[in-house]
Amino acid sequence: MKHATSEITIKALNERGVVLTDLSKIVYDMQVRYVPDLTIDECYEHILRVLDKREVQHAVLTGINIDKLAEQKLFDEPLQSIIERDEGLYGIDEILALSIVNCYGSIGFTNFGWLDKEKVGVIGDFDSKKHGGVHTFLDDILCAICASACSRLAHKRIEKED
Amino acid sequence: MKHATSEITIKALNERGVVLTDLSKIVYDMQVRYVPDLTIDECYEHILRVLDKREVQHAVLTGINIDKLAEQKLFDEPLQSIIERDEGLYGIDEILALSIVNCYGSIGFTNFGWLDKEKVGVIGDFDSKKHGGVHTFLDDILCAICASACSRLAHKRIEKED
Amino acid sequence: MKHATSEITIKALNERGVVLTDLSKIVYDMQVRYVPDLTIDECYEHILRVLDKREVQHAVLTGINIDKLAEQKLFDEPLQSIIERDEGLYGIDEILALSIVNCYGSIGFTNFGWLDKEKVGVIGDFDSKKHGGVHTFLDDILCAICASACSRLAHKRIEKED
Amino acid sequence: MKHATSEITIKALNERGVVLTDLSKIVYDMQVRYVPDLTIDECYEHILRVLDKREVQHAVLTGINIDKLAEQKLFDEPLQSIIERDEGLYGIDEILALSIVNCYGSIGFTNFGWLDKEKVGVIGDFDSKKHGGVHTFLDDILCAICASACSRLAHKRIEKED
Repeated sequence: MKHATSEITIKALNERGVVLTDLSKIVYDMQVRYVPDLTIDECYEHILRVLDKREVQHAVLTGINIDKLAEQKLFDEPLQSIIERDEGLYGIDEILALSIVNCYGSIGFTNFGWLDKEKVGVIGDFDSKKHGGVHTFLDDILCAICASACSRLAHKRIEKED
Repeated sequence: MKHATSEITIKALNERGVVLTDLSKIVYDMQVRYVPDLTIDECYEHILRVLDKREVQHAVLTGINIDKLAEQKLFDEPLQSIIERDEGLYGIDEILALSIVNCYGSIGFTNFGWLDKEKVGVIGDFDSKKHGGVHTFLDDILCAICASACSRLAHKRIEKED
Repeated sequence: MKHATSEITIKALNERGVVLTDLSKIVYDMQVRYVPDLTIDECYEHILRVLDKREVQHAVLTGINIDKLAEQKLFDEPLQSIIERDEGLYGIDEILALSIVNCYGSIGFTNFGWLDKEKVGVIGDFDSKKHGGVHTFLDDILCAICASACSRLAHKRIEKED
Repeated sequence: MKHATSEITIKALNERGVVLTDLSKIVYDMQVRYVPDLTIDECYEHILRVLDKREVQHAVLTGINIDKLAEQKLFDEPLQSIIERDEGLYGIDEILALSIVNCYGSIGFTNFGWLDKEKVGVIGDFDSKKHGGVHTFLDDILCAICASACSRLAHKRIEKED
């Protein structure tokens, strides 16, 4: 029962075109320089554990729902146009994503910001809208999930070394 | 032109049953102990200046839109029920409100948290749903607007004294 | 080995006059209305788990060290006077405390803010400086530890019910 | 009188080897792609306005003081070593820097994170400790000042266009 919302969250990501193994590749590329024996499977496991957190699930589901409702043009103007265009000064998509990063301590902010600017790997596909549709919240959420998995990995690995 | 979104934001608040002078009364009651010559008009002015900020406007409009879309039951389950019931562990309503408080420095967090627990004045009406409808995001947003006005007032008054 | 910094953190709190069982009483008083079968021992356990987190330990140790260095008047002016007087607009003590609350999701902000204003129980002793010395960071840190323990308790209890 | 703390803050930055015009060059390089008629003088002005904010001044002065006290080895262990080594999991330096970024809305997080990872221009000098001494808090603070100036510039420029 405990994992019900976790499964719904992963399903919601899948339906928006997100493949979790693509995210684990991003985490691997960011962390392998610090953890030479790292594997993509370990990164995948950290992403699953991030998605197990209730606060993370709420942020992911809310963000994806906003994107979908914006695709159906259900927001009032001027908000509808702001979300659709992913306007640079909007900021609410970043705030929602930060509620994910927050859960893993402050070291995640750097990785989140870097990912959000560089849009590496699959994240860039959603930002440049190759998939079509509105992904204003989704691309920030993917950055946040990856940054949180990096933080979780760093904390676990270093705690082991202590 | 500059105030266009500001006017839309105040109109959106009005349509949800929020009267700005009620908010200025809350700010007055919280700050008069520190600023004995304070007037409700001055508090009203600080609330207007808070609502002039683009980031604040985005947060208010997004929160109100989510409440309205939840009233129309347009979110997927389980998110629809979580928002409708204003579930205690949801957390995304607090995060959105914090993006307002953030703009005025960290001293606003205390007033925000206190207001969000005590639900004084008109804020309590929205929390207990006397108005009917869904006000999951609105009550936190009102706490954030009042807490931000308190911070703005404190900063301006003390800067004058320097 | 893992708990070494945890023990150092608890020792640092003790040396500043903080008794963890006093904090568990505050958590109990705040949560018993929602969890009727709650015990003070369970609250104590949640406080210990909060203090097990590396980010929490770093915030506690940094805050206590700043207070101690301010007692020795080692900060440059005007910062020394600002910290000593616990000036209302300082804000950095709240920010440090929020890095603790952040780790447990956004629902902790409300309890943090309420505690920081009401200064219930032993927290009030540090704010009103009955112990003597500088406790500018400590009182916010105690609010944050209690608020985080409340969040942790709420998340664990509700997850069980699911 | 109003600018007294502002002048003290700039002097404190200068004494740690920070030249504000170097920071305005970083802001220019990050923003010129979006604002083709941008000048370094305009960037310099935005940095001055960021440093006019009380919350920013408090964060800068606190961070610089912690660095200086760590150079004098005045923190208790293990905190002294953690700050001296700028340990990756420490996180409190990022939190302090975020209190600066927060004041300018959520769009600054991305620029902050990117700068904190890429350490462009003069920021890299402090991170790699070419200046000698402890600069654990200073490098994050410089990233935050530049990211905030970018946010301020973006908000002002787009508001003009509206």
